[in-house]
Amino acid sequence: MSTLVNRRDLAFLLYDWLHIESLCEQPLFKEHDRETFDMILDMAERLAEEKFFPHAQKVDEKEPHFDGEKVHIIPEVKEALDAHAEAGFLGMSFDAEWGGMQLPYTISQACNGIFYAANVSTAGYPMLTMGAANLLAHHGTEQQKSTYMLPMIEGRFYGTMCLSEPQAGSSLSDLRTKATPHEDGTYRVVGNKMWISGGEHDLSENIIHLVLARLPGAPAGVKGISLFIVPKYLLNKDGSLGQRNDVQLAGINHKMGYRGTINTVLNFGEEERCVGYLVGEPHHGLRYMFHMMNEARIAVGLGASMLGYTGFLHSLAYARQRPQGRHPGAKDPTQPPVPIIEHADVKRMLLAQKAYAEGALALCLYCAKLFDQQRTAPQEEQAELGLLLDLLTPIAKAWPSEYCLEANKLAIQVLGGYGYTREYHVERFYRDNRLNPIHEGTNGIQALDLLGRKVTMKQGAALQALQARVEATLAQASNIPALEEFVTSLKEALGDVVQTTMVLMQTAMKGEIDLYLANASVYLNLFGHTVLAWIWLEQAVALQRLDDTDATYKEGKMRACQYFYRWELPHTKTWAKLLQSLDETCLKMPTESF
Amino acid sequence: MSTLVNRRDLAFLLYDWLHIESLCEQPLFKEHDRETFDMILDMAERLAEEKFFPHAQKVDEKEPHFDGEKVHIIPEVKEALDAHAEAGFLGMSFDAEWGGMQLPYTISQACNGIFYAANVSTAGYPMLTMGAANLLAHHGTEQQKSTYMLPMIEGRFYGTMCLSEPQAGSSLSDLRTKATPHEDGTYRVVGNKMWISGGEHDLSENIIHLVLARLPGAPAGVKGISLFIVPKYLLNKDGSLGQRNDVQLAGINHKMGYRGTINTVLNFGEEERCVGYLVGEPHHGLRYMFHMMNEARIAVGLGASMLGYTGFLHSLAYARQRPQGRHPGAKDPTQPPVPIIEHADVKRMLLAQKAYAEGALALCLYCAKLFDQQRTAPQEEQAELGLLLDLLTPIAKAWPSEYCLEANKLAIQVLGGYGYTREYHVERFYRDNRLNPIHEGTNGIQALDLLGRKVTMKQGAALQALQARVEATLAQASNIPALEEFVTSLKEALGDVVQTTMVLMQTAMKGEIDLYLANASVYLNLFGHTVLAWIWLEQAVALQRLDDTDATYKEGKMRACQYFYRWELPHTKTWAKLLQSLDETCLKMPTESF
Repeated sequence: MSTLVNRRDLAFLLYDWLHIESLCEQPLFKEHDRETFDMILDMAERLAEEKFFPHAQKVDEKEPHFDGEKVHIIPEVKEALDAHAEAGFLGMSFDAEWGGMQLPYTISQACNGIFYAANVSTAGYPMLTMGAANLLAHHGTEQQKSTYMLPMIEGRFYGTMCLSEPQAGSSLSDLRTKATPHEDGTYRVVGNKMWISGGEHDLSENIIHLVLARLPGAPAGVKGISLFIVPKYLLNKDGSLGQRNDVQLAGINHKMGYRGTINTVLNFGEEERCVGYLVGEPHHGLRYMFHMMNEARIAVGLGASMLGYTGFLHSLAYARQRPQGRHPGAKDPTQPPVPIIEHADVKRMLLAQKAYAEGALALCLYCAKLFDQQRTAPQEEQAELGLLLDLLTPIAKAWPSEYCLEANKLAIQVLGGYGYTREYHVERFYRDNRLNPIHEGTNGIQALDLLGRKVTMKQGAALQALQARVEATLAQASNIPALEEFVTSLKEALGDVVQTTMVLMQTAMKGEIDLYLANASVYLNLFGHTVLAWIWLEQAVALQRLDDTDATYKEGKMRACQYFYRWELPHTKTWAKLLQSLDETCLKMPTESF
Repeated sequence: MSTLVNRRDLAFLLYDWLHIESLCEQPLFKEHDRETFDMILDMAERLAEEKFFPHAQKVDEKEPHFDGEKVHIIPEVKEALDAHAEAGFLGMSFDAEWGGMQLPYTISQACNGIFYAANVSTAGYPMLTMGAANLLAHHGTEQQKSTYMLPMIEGRFYGTMCLSEPQAGSSLSDLRTKATPHEDGTYRVVGNKMWISGGEHDLSENIIHLVLARLPGAPAGVKGISLFIVPKYLLNKDGSLGQRNDVQLAGINHKMGYRGTINTVLNFGEEERCVGYLVGEPHHGLRYMFHMMNEARIAVGLGASMLGYTGFLHSLAYARQRPQGRHPGAKDPTQPPVPIIEHADVKRMLLAQKAYAEGALALCLYCAKLFDQQRTAPQEEQAELGLLLDLLTPIAKAWPSEYCLEANKLAIQVLGGYGYTREYHVERFYRDNRLNPIHEGTNGIQALDLLGRKVTMKQGAALQALQARVEATLAQASNIPALEEFVTSLKEALGDVVQTTMVLMQTAMKGEIDLYLANASVYLNLFGHTVLAWIWLEQAVALQRLDDTDATYKEGKMRACQYFYRWELPHTKTWAKLLQSLDETCLKMPTESF
């Protein structure tokens, strides 16, 4: 079996559960069917195995470096990315009129997931590029699309997103980068940006930076931020590369993992000749960027999920072939040892990984389908889809990045000492995955977004929409005796979420804002585990429809579901109780007493 | 403040809580008093700051390598270790007759802890050497002591422990290395050993390998294992170095962290001339080795604790000086940002680290004191001390290695993107600490040791001894109104441990051995958290005796205790319930269904 993804499982998620093929009934996707979906998934898997996975270890050992003049990245990265662009993967979800494949986002995410599993560092470049292109598809002018977006879809230009600055990581309201109007209608950008992935390299002909900056006299805070296109090379009228723009590489960050994706500090306008082009309206930049950010957040969740997934498959393969020890009840040392997969504690570590990774992937694909539905559903369904997607985005970003990191920790443990060496892959997965709770908004920020914004918006309409969907799943599951235990537990957990939310909202309404948000991270745990339990019940319902030829697969999935319900979900009670007590242990800790 | 350890806290643990100075009333330690203890702690801290910490990052980047002829280790390691030996730290806990300082083990562990915090990789060499020397102190002949142990105390020879083999990591009963008696009374050793820390280097004049091997005709399994001294260089009659013994470096393992401690594969007797010397009686090797192993396990726990501790202090220092964002109730972007330590979620991450790291360190020092008491207490108290130490050893190894790894994860999160770069130290702590759940018996092995051996030995006498101690603490705490909440919670948790243990023992008595041990890891969690809650209550009781000058410090400790009781301990209910249900989710997972 592949160590990237279990294709039986992926097919189950896409077709048996999400019925993605039904999207082909929509005009937007009418050129496709399950056959074309599978063909592209096959192609992604082959390319990932042949071009992405083989250099994953090497690019980790030999990370990108700057010799003072030029950034060097091992050639295998460009080879893989060229093949990826050549095969059209950058344009998967773009419209045919732009040369795209016009595939459902769900299928493109599934393909991306396979590349993440193979080599998340190398796959980072196209991920950023697709995000940047997609932003321009929505907010750029026709001329900006043809000039910058099209070459990104073709893989000739790559994209970046430039938000953070050295003095302002998570706090976007403190951005200082400035953009001044120039007489020719362009802008001159001056400022420093930090943590810019893909900020400098020769992997593509050009790099298109999407940069947040303030116009002169812009309001303070997040309401005064505009968005600019800042190309590495300016373009001549005929689209050919012109002179180098005033964007300087100021430094490379050397990271614990994700080493193949170059991460940079960039100086814009050191020589006061950095040209930028305004995207959309002045002062609306953050909204446009958040269009990209929300996709990026789900992409982060997907990346985390797939690192968890491949770690699970690697440790599973090891556990099947490594003989060691005997069963507790049969200690005769003259008998041969058993494969470690037979030990209960190893099964525990594998089953936990399976429950985390398959659950996380399912959640991310569910969110991707919501995207597709938003594009195709009738007007009257749009509001619900948008609310759900808004509500689930912080979960889809944060939950996989916490629990699939935990999965990678367990993958190392299954391999023991071997897992701790760089000879095997699992320690790299763990290092790579450690970024995911941090970037694209730390999980602490996600928690504030969930509790402080998403749950409260439109008088709690998003939570009500989710609740309705969970209750629909519960109603379906109630008719299936094998799922009784899960139905009971999920009802309780959902009740805890609702009750806890009410207690917290009352606190907010009393004006005790600091107290209301103090334990938001615990709320994210409570909410996230409940959502995952729902996603597992969704899968369990769909599993019932499989026939006997799938009995072995089904048994494994049902066990993973059972693991989640018995081993994980009960912790929500502890979290709900803590939240409802409005505990002030952390909030009231005097800073001098640490 | 130092980022290695909070000396006020260390003093509280050693004196205000454990009353280590009272050991000086014993003849063994009568040369010492609190003043000499503090002097040696000062010396350790200074040496750690000046010689160990400064090269911690460098040795991680430039790990030991073998050029085909010789192992190269950056010179700073030897400089630090020579200074460490010169100052007498290797001999801290050895008797004065061997040139040692004859300090209590608790003080020597506190000093070791400071070195671990500064640079766990470099501190690994003396840790192994002290362990090897101590084994010989207990089980070697007088001649072996003067020939091998004495030079180890002096820092001229270093030691290793050679247990694992490529085909048998955790499963010692499958060891294959052979030792054949030679006509001169020595042995010829043949075999391959894996994961040997400190197995080859030029840091010391000689390396003394302590090797487990089987004699001809030895019983199968763990009852047929003997222990041998195998020096890298054979010694001439006058003690000078003779010819190189037949021990070959077969390879170096490249690890995720702990990179400065060279980890090797060694071939013994490739040329059939590897000379070994039997230690003690034939076939009792594992018992002798476990004398060393038990110490090594507590040392692992201490190392994990101190990595957690220093990570906490590093992230605390960062949080105090990094301005970013504003309080939820005060979002005016024209106001300056606050230091991140003021954010509730950052306080949470700091307080969790404090609760984990200070709790873990307290547990390890408590165990160290039990060692000292074993050496000095009257005969009638020996049994109880031995039982407690046996019972607490798997907890002291496993709990810090799980939860202080979690602490390091949080330290990275406090620093955000910076924490993920190798410019800062916290990502290294996390990588270093990831070894601790694996080596010296994986935490899965510790769980089996706790539930399958320690809890059952002598009809549960160890658990009863612990229970008596916990109840004594509860009785003390019951008189203090401020501790009421903790008393109630700990009583419940202790009750859950006892009840759960009974259910599991009944399962064992029915002969369902696989089921009884299936969820041992959860039992370790339940037991570990309960022990830590007890250790925190012990500290809380001692804190009440501090006067007002310590109010700020006391407030912080009490909050950390409260954090542990409110945020962590309640999870024991979930674990107890799961265990009492004799859940078979993992045990019965068919291996083909993963």
